[in-house]
Amino acid sequence: MRQTVDVNSDMGEGFGAWAFAGDVDARLMPLVSSINLAAGFHAGDPATIDRVTLLAQEHGVGIGAHPGFRDLVGFGRRHIDASAEELVCDVLYQLGAVRALVERRGARLQHVKLHGALYMHAARDEAFARALVDALDEADADLPILTMAGSVLDQVASERGHPAVRELYADRLYGDDGQIVFTRDVGSLQPEAVVAKIEQACAEGTVQTTSGASVPIVFDSICIHSDTPGAVALATAVRAALDRVGVDVRTFA
Amino acid sequence: MRQTVDVNSDMGEGFGAWAFAGDVDARLMPLVSSINLAAGFHAGDPATIDRVTLLAQEHGVGIGAHPGFRDLVGFGRRHIDASAEELVCDVLYQLGAVRALVERRGARLQHVKLHGALYMHAARDEAFARALVDALDEADADLPILTMAGSVLDQVASERGHPAVRELYADRLYGDDGQIVFTRDVGSLQPEAVVAKIEQACAEGTVQTTSGASVPIVFDSICIHSDTPGAVALATAVRAALDRVGVDVRTFA
Amino acid sequence: MRQTVDVNSDMGEGFGAWAFAGDVDARLMPLVSSINLAAGFHAGDPATIDRVTLLAQEHGVGIGAHPGFRDLVGFGRRHIDASAEELVCDVLYQLGAVRALVERRGARLQHVKLHGALYMHAARDEAFARALVDALDEADADLPILTMAGSVLDQVASERGHPAVRELYADRLYGDDGQIVFTRDVGSLQPEAVVAKIEQACAEGTVQTTSGASVPIVFDSICIHSDTPGAVALATAVRAALDRVGVDVRTFA
Amino acid sequence: MRQTVDVNSDMGEGFGAWAFAGDVDARLMPLVSSINLAAGFHAGDPATIDRVTLLAQEHGVGIGAHPGFRDLVGFGRRHIDASAEELVCDVLYQLGAVRALVERRGARLQHVKLHGALYMHAARDEAFARALVDALDEADADLPILTMAGSVLDQVASERGHPAVRELYADRLYGDDGQIVFTRDVGSLQPEAVVAKIEQACAEGTVQTTSGASVPIVFDSICIHSDTPGAVALATAVRAALDRVGVDVRTFA
Repeated sequence: MRQTVDVNSDMGEGFGAWAFAGDVDARLMPLVSSINLAAGFHAGDPATIDRVTLLAQEHGVGIGAHPGFRDLVGFGRRHIDASAEELVCDVLYQLGAVRALVERRGARLQHVKLHGALYMHAARDEAFARALVDALDEADADLPILTMAGSVLDQVASERGHPAVRELYADRLYGDDGQIVFTRDVGSLQPEAVVAKIEQACAEGTVQTTSGASVPIVFDSICIHSDTPGAVALATAVRAALDRVGVDVRTFA
Repeated sequence: MRQTVDVNSDMGEGFGAWAFAGDVDARLMPLVSSINLAAGFHAGDPATIDRVTLLAQEHGVGIGAHPGFRDLVGFGRRHIDASAEELVCDVLYQLGAVRALVERRGARLQHVKLHGALYMHAARDEAFARALVDALDEADADLPILTMAGSVLDQVASERGHPAVRELYADRLYGDDGQIVFTRDVGSLQPEAVVAKIEQACAEGTVQTTSGASVPIVFDSICIHSDTPGAVALATAVRAALDRVGVDVRTFA
Repeated sequence: MRQTVDVNSDMGEGFGAWAFAGDVDARLMPLVSSINLAAGFHAGDPATIDRVTLLAQEHGVGIGAHPGFRDLVGFGRRHIDASAEELVCDVLYQLGAVRALVERRGARLQHVKLHGALYMHAARDEAFARALVDALDEADADLPILTMAGSVLDQVASERGHPAVRELYADRLYGDDGQIVFTRDVGSLQPEAVVAKIEQACAEGTVQTTSGASVPIVFDSICIHSDTPGAVALATAVRAALDRVGVDVRTFA
Repeated sequence: MRQTVDVNSDMGEGFGAWAFAGDVDARLMPLVSSINLAAGFHAGDPATIDRVTLLAQEHGVGIGAHPGFRDLVGFGRRHIDASAEELVCDVLYQLGAVRALVERRGARLQHVKLHGALYMHAARDEAFARALVDALDEADADLPILTMAGSVLDQVASERGHPAVRELYADRLYGDDGQIVFTRDVGSLQPEAVVAKIEQACAEGTVQTTSGASVPIVFDSICIHSDTPGAVALATAVRAALDRVGVDVRTFA
C-alpha cells in the first residue's frame, strides 16, 4: 500500500455570473490537496480565479493552472484544429495569467494541467506534446505538468526530464490500453465502485478496465472532476476510503 | 535640454488574421525603445504576442504589457462600468499572460501600460487607481507603470512609491490642465507640428495646449500610437528631431 | 380589477454548459405566458435558444428576443459606453438571430425586450431610445417592445406609435418616480410582499415605493426574473394570487 | 459560351476597428453582383454588417449571409469538432442576424454561403449537410445556398430540392475530383492564369486541375475572395475577360 497521494479537482469553472453549482468549489476544497484553476479560455474569468485562489489559500491547497481550448461555449470539450504553436502560445498565455493572480495573493503556482479536449490532444498528438514540453521548459522548467501515465505527453515529459505527475481518474472509465475512455456524459457514479477502484489502485497499483481486465496504473494524484454529478459525495467517499487504508492525502509539490 | 528619452509605441494590436496594417509593427520597431504589447482583451492574441516579442528582441526593445477593457469589438475604447476589483483582476490576468510569453523567449517584462479607455479611467478614477497600484505592489512592486504626469494614477503611484514613467503624447492634443484630450479620431497629423512639440518639450519642458497656452510637462517617454495614420513617418520625424537636438533614445529601465 | 395580464420571464440565460440552475426554465415555463430569450451577447447560445424555443412551444408560451450589451462575463449588467447606432445594430443582430431560430420551429417572434443595463440605458437615454424605435420601425413596425411605463423608451415608443407593452416588476423595488430601483443584488424576496404588491397593482393600479408612498403604475405584463433567488416559488405565489383575484394570465399578443 | 454569370465576394470580414485592408470592400463592390456578409462568428460585427449593407445597396448588389465557425481568432479557418445540431443552430443564428440588419435597410437576404472550414465541413460531412439543408428548409425553403458542384452539400441540396448555386473559385486550385484544394495560404495569383481559367470555364465548362487534367465544372457564380492578395486587380481582370467573351455579370436571384 502506498503512503501518500494527492487529490486534485478542477475549480473556478464558471464564467462571470455562471457556475456549475453555486458552492461546489467551497464544498470540495476541504477534500482535495490540489486544484486546477480554469484559466479563461474554456471557463474562468479573472475575478473568479482570484476568488478561488483565496479559498484555496484558506485550505492550504496547491494551485495549478488549467488551460483549455479557446471555446467558452463548448467548455473546451470540442477539439479545435489549431497548430501546435498556436496552442502552445494559448497555454502559456493562460498559465501566466493564472500565475499573476495567484502570486498577487502570495501563493505560488504549483503545476499546470490541460483541460478537456486539449488534455486529450496532448495525450495523443506527439507534435503538440513536444512543442508543449519544449515551451514549458523554456518558461518554467520546474513546473510539474499533470499527465496520464502512458500517454504521449507523459512519454515526452519523461524523455525531456520535465517533471510530470500522473493521475488516476476516480470518475472516468479505463480502456485496456490503460487510458481513460473519453466521454462527454459521465452520468452518476456509484461511490462504492469508485471507492473500490481507488482501494485497488492504492493497494495493487492496478485498475479494472471496461472489458473487466486489470491493467497496471501509475499515479501520484487522484482526479475528481468538480462537474461530475455528485462530486462532493464522491470526494467524501474517496477521502474516507483513503483514511481507512491509511493513505495520507497531500500535495505532490 | 534633456539627455535621454524613451520612445514607446503600442504593438501587437491585431487579433488572429487581423492587423491594422500588415507591417506597421515591423516598420516602427527600429524607431522605438519600448513597446506596449496588446494583452488579449482589446486586441492581441497569444500567437501575435509571441511573434511581436521575437521582433522586439531582435531590436533590443523593452517590452511592456498593455492591458485594456474586455472589449474586442470596441478595441478597448469604450468605457465599461466594471468594479475596481474586477478591473484589477483583468489587468493582472493580462499582465501575467504577456509576461509568460515574454519570459519564455528569455526576455523580461519591462513595464505595464493601460490601454485606451482603461488608461483614461485610471487617470481619473481614484478608487480604481488605488486598487490598481495596490495590486501591482502585491504582484510586482518594481514593475514600472506608464502614466500621464498629473493624472490620478500618477499621483497615487507617487504616494505609494510605485515606479511610474510619465509619457508625452506625440500624437495627441493637450488641454490647459496638462492632460491629453481624448478623442477616438485623431486624423492625420502634421509631422512638423509634432516635431515642434517634441523639441519644445525636450528643450523647455512645456507643451502647447489647444487654447494656445504653454503648460509644464514632465515626461520620461514619448508615446507614438501605432494606429495613428502615418505613424511610421511621424516616428521617423520624431527620431530625426531627437537626433538633431542631441537627445538619446533609450529605454527607461 | 383588471381582467387579464401577461406574465413574462427571462429564459435561456445560460451559455453552453452553464445555466444559473439546471431546471429553472423548465419549472418556470408552466407559470408564465411570455418569455424573453437571451439572444447571445450577455447570455444565450444558439443551441440553448433552440432548446428553450421548443420548451416554450410545448407550453404555448409567447417568445420574445432579449438582446443585451455584448458583455458575457458581466451578464450584460455593466453599462458600455457605445454609440446609439452601434447599440441599435447590436439589438437588431440579436433580434434577427433569435427570430430565425424561433421561426425554424414554426413559432413566431412575439416581442423584444432589452436586458439589464441596456434596458436601463433605453429607459433613460433619449438618443438611444429614439434610434432604437426608429430601427425597430424599419425592421418590424408591428413588433411590440416591453417597457417601463414612464421611461424614456416608453415615451418615445408612444410618440412614434410603436407598440409597447408596459411591465410591472414583481421582484424589483420602485422609487417615487415610478421607476424600478436598479440593483445587482436583489436578495431573497418574501413571496407575501410580492403577492401583496401584485394584488394592489391589479386592484388599484398603484405600487408602493421604497419611501412608503403609493404611485400609479400602468402595466400589461408582470415580470418575474428567472435568476431571482426563489423565482419558481415567487411565480407560483403570483399565479395563485392572480387566480384568487380572478385575473386571467394570457399573453398580450 | 454561357450568357450570364454571377460574381460573388466575401465582404465585411472585419471586426470592430479591424479590416483586412481599409477599402477593399468599397473597391470590390462595383465589380461583383453578389456579396457574402460575414455574420459575426468568424468575422463581422453588427455595425460593419450594416455599413456594408448600405454600400451593397448603393451598387445594387445581392446580399447573402456568410456564417462560419465560432472562431474569431482563427478567422473560421479552423475546424471545430461540434455536433451537427450545434452547427445548424449557429448557422441559423447568424443567418437571422444578418437578415434583420439587411431587411432594416429595405433590402432582402438573397442567399446563404458558409465560410472557410465550415464550408469545407458541409462539403464533406453528410450528417451536417443533411441537418443543415433540413434546417434551411424549415427556416426558409426558398433561400439559395452556395455550393461546390459535386460536394456532399450540393448533392444533399439537389436531393431535397433546396435551391443551390454552384460556384467556380477564381482564386483557388482544383484537384482531379473537381473540388478545390483547401489551403490557408493562397499567395499571389497571376491574373492571366485566373483569366484563362475563367474563359475556359465559361467557354468549355471545364477547369484545369493541379495535375494538368481538365475536369467538367458546373457553376452559376464565380467566387473571388476579398482577402486574396491583389483581389481588386483580380476582380478587374475577371470582369474585363467576361466582357470580352460576352458573358453578362448578374446575380442569380
